Amino acid sequence: MTTQVIVLNGGSSSGKSGIARCLQAVLPDPWLTLGADTLVSAMPVSAQKSGIEFAPDGEVIVGATFRALEAAWIAGIAAMAYAGARVIVDEVFIGGAASQRRWKDALGPLHVLWVGVRCDAGVAVGRELARGDRIIGMAASQADLVHHGVAYDLQVDTTHTEALECAQAIAARLR
Amino acid sequence: MTTQVIVLNGGSSSGKSGIARCLQAVLPDPWLTLGADTLVSAMPVSAQKSGIEFAPDGEVIVGATFRALEAAWIAGIAAMAYAGARVIVDEVFIGGAASQRRWKDALGPLHVLWVGVRCDAGVAVGRELARGDRIIGMAASQADLVHHGVAYDLQVDTTHTEALECAQAIAARLR
Amino acid sequence: MTTQVIVLNGGSSSGKSGIARCLQAVLPDPWLTLGADTLVSAMPVSAQKSGIEFAPDGEVIVGATFRALEAAWIAGIAAMAYAGARVIVDEVFIGGAASQRRWKDALGPLHVLWVGVRCDAGVAVGRELARGDRIIGMAASQADLVHHGVAYDLQVDTTHTEALECAQAIAARLR
Amino acid sequence: MTTQVIVLNGGSSSGKSGIARCLQAVLPDPWLTLGADTLVSAMPVSAQKSGIEFAPDGEVIVGATFRALEAAWIAGIAAMAYAGARVIVDEVFIGGAASQRRWKDALGPLHVLWVGVRCDAGVAVGRELARGDRIIGMAASQADLVHHGVAYDLQVDTTHTEALECAQAIAARLR
Repeated sequence: MTTQVIVLNGGSSSGKSGIARCLQAVLPDPWLTLGADTLVSAMPVSAQKSGIEFAPDGEVIVGATFRALEAAWIAGIAAMAYAGARVIVDEVFIGGAASQRRWKDALGPLHVLWVGVRCDAGVAVGRELARGDRIIGMAASQADLVHHGVAYDLQVDTTHTEALECAQAIAARLR
Repeated sequence: MTTQVIVLNGGSSSGKSGIARCLQAVLPDPWLTLGADTLVSAMPVSAQKSGIEFAPDGEVIVGATFRALEAAWIAGIAAMAYAGARVIVDEVFIGGAASQRRWKDALGPLHVLWVGVRCDAGVAVGRELARGDRIIGMAASQADLVHHGVAYDLQVDTTHTEALECAQAIAARLR
Repeated sequence: MTTQVIVLNGGSSSGKSGIARCLQAVLPDPWLTLGADTLVSAMPVSAQKSGIEFAPDGEVIVGATFRALEAAWIAGIAAMAYAGARVIVDEVFIGGAASQRRWKDALGPLHVLWVGVRCDAGVAVGRELARGDRIIGMAASQADLVHHGVAYDLQVDTTHTEALECAQAIAARLR
Repeated sequence: MTTQVIVLNGGSSSGKSGIARCLQAVLPDPWLTLGADTLVSAMPVSAQKSGIEFAPDGEVIVGATFRALEAAWIAGIAAMAYAGARVIVDEVFIGGAASQRRWKDALGPLHVLWVGVRCDAGVAVGRELARGDRIIGMAASQADLVHHGVAYDLQVDTTHTEALECAQAIAARLR
């Protein structure tokens, strides 16, 4: 069976979205990319602010409202894949292994490629600055946290490797 | 039973997204807003261009790839609502009654409020110009087309009514 | 002599940018649109935050750094017009008459059309909500403030008039 | 005398904007960043399309309207610096040495640091793909072209060096 879902997990400014766009360009079939950013922008402005809180150091604190919406969101993404869409999930496992567990439960028997997107924390902090539209501190606080206890089929590291090259390595692993 | 899904259907530049954001602000519970724009931006750049084609007059031509991804997308949005999320669907029924049929089949027994978002074509054309980021011609070609044969619980008209007022009228109809 | 600069002054969410884009579409010559939003996004992120402060009610407090950069910005916009570009200035006269004075001094002998963009405060507040990307409170606090003591050649009101119609009224007044 | 203007010249997707944002973050004084993207978005939508034309391979063809507006724009940026603002110019010298000549004439006696932003064409093409919002082909067609006959005080290369590090190298060269 062919791969139905690619989950990219990495901290803020680790380069996941760039890899996702390159994957969409290099893979012969059409893949949808959906992720944490899509979910947050789908929420009411008030929930964006209170549901996820940003501590002064950029750490993300998740509330109950956010958690409930996220559970339904995950179920919906899984349903898209069950219905035949190939989906790239562009995610930040704030809860590490617990986050992966939630996705694993929802994705059930689907063929998933779990990809860890690594980036040296110092480099990610610089890229966060260069992007100019991110809350400063998220890259530093998430760089290691999101990989805690997470199991991968493949890891890529954007510290010294371009997004396109990472995408090609991932594409080579698809069944 | 309370309303679980609000479907806003209207042509480009009819004011759906503004109504959706106002609904999110005035409704006491958190609602997710997802729609045609979310789906298009989730697609590969190549599918955005070839899957939906824009005729010189702004008419939208939908291809088979787009149609297949859209079917899975609709199934996924329905699954989010089944899983407990309240969802505002911000849609353009390019196929009129046939589009509504696809959503109706997927949403099944869920409690849905079907809302038509009307806007005088001439006014929508002016707003399309004022937005500055839209393909000119979509507002004109879609203004009536998308309502063809579609059945509503409620219709609002943004020609002379503000988005917030429309949202309040919709909110008053929720169970 | 023909008009060289159109200054649109109005509060946040009063509809200035939409009018500017419509003006660019209806006027036969090419006009540049530059304004407060351009200046703010040209500044360092830190100056965007500390240079202009947003009080909890959305009021804007302007610091010395912001004021100095703004003075140079105004001189530069004036120089573009002296050099032959037609310019639409999309502005928020936070200081009312004092802000107009600064622009008047810089624009000197240029032929300027001063346009007040009015919008009922309650309506502007609703549109601010509908846009979803603005700090809530700015529309209310600026609606009247920015017109204090300002002299206009022409005023338009977007409360019940579309941006395109306002633009046509302004275009009709150009020399 | 201290440096008043930093001109960053490089092809599309070479990393200029990221360097500019890092410069704004690391430099102690507030610097404005303005550039080709600002000018294009200030133009009427019609001039954006007809003034600059994109050949199928992404090559940029500049028309007379664009050229006239650009001349006034350059004069205006120079005036901002004369008026005391420190300005980072984020530019694409489509015309190579001729483009630099236009800026040099306008900036006259101001203290300018001319910086070439290099990036291996293959790498820039991959980054263009990863950004997802650029016309494919510009990175390739501009990579070398924009440096033709241009004289620099300093060159940086983003192929293997992060934006922040490039910014620090530039900052170290300011007087």
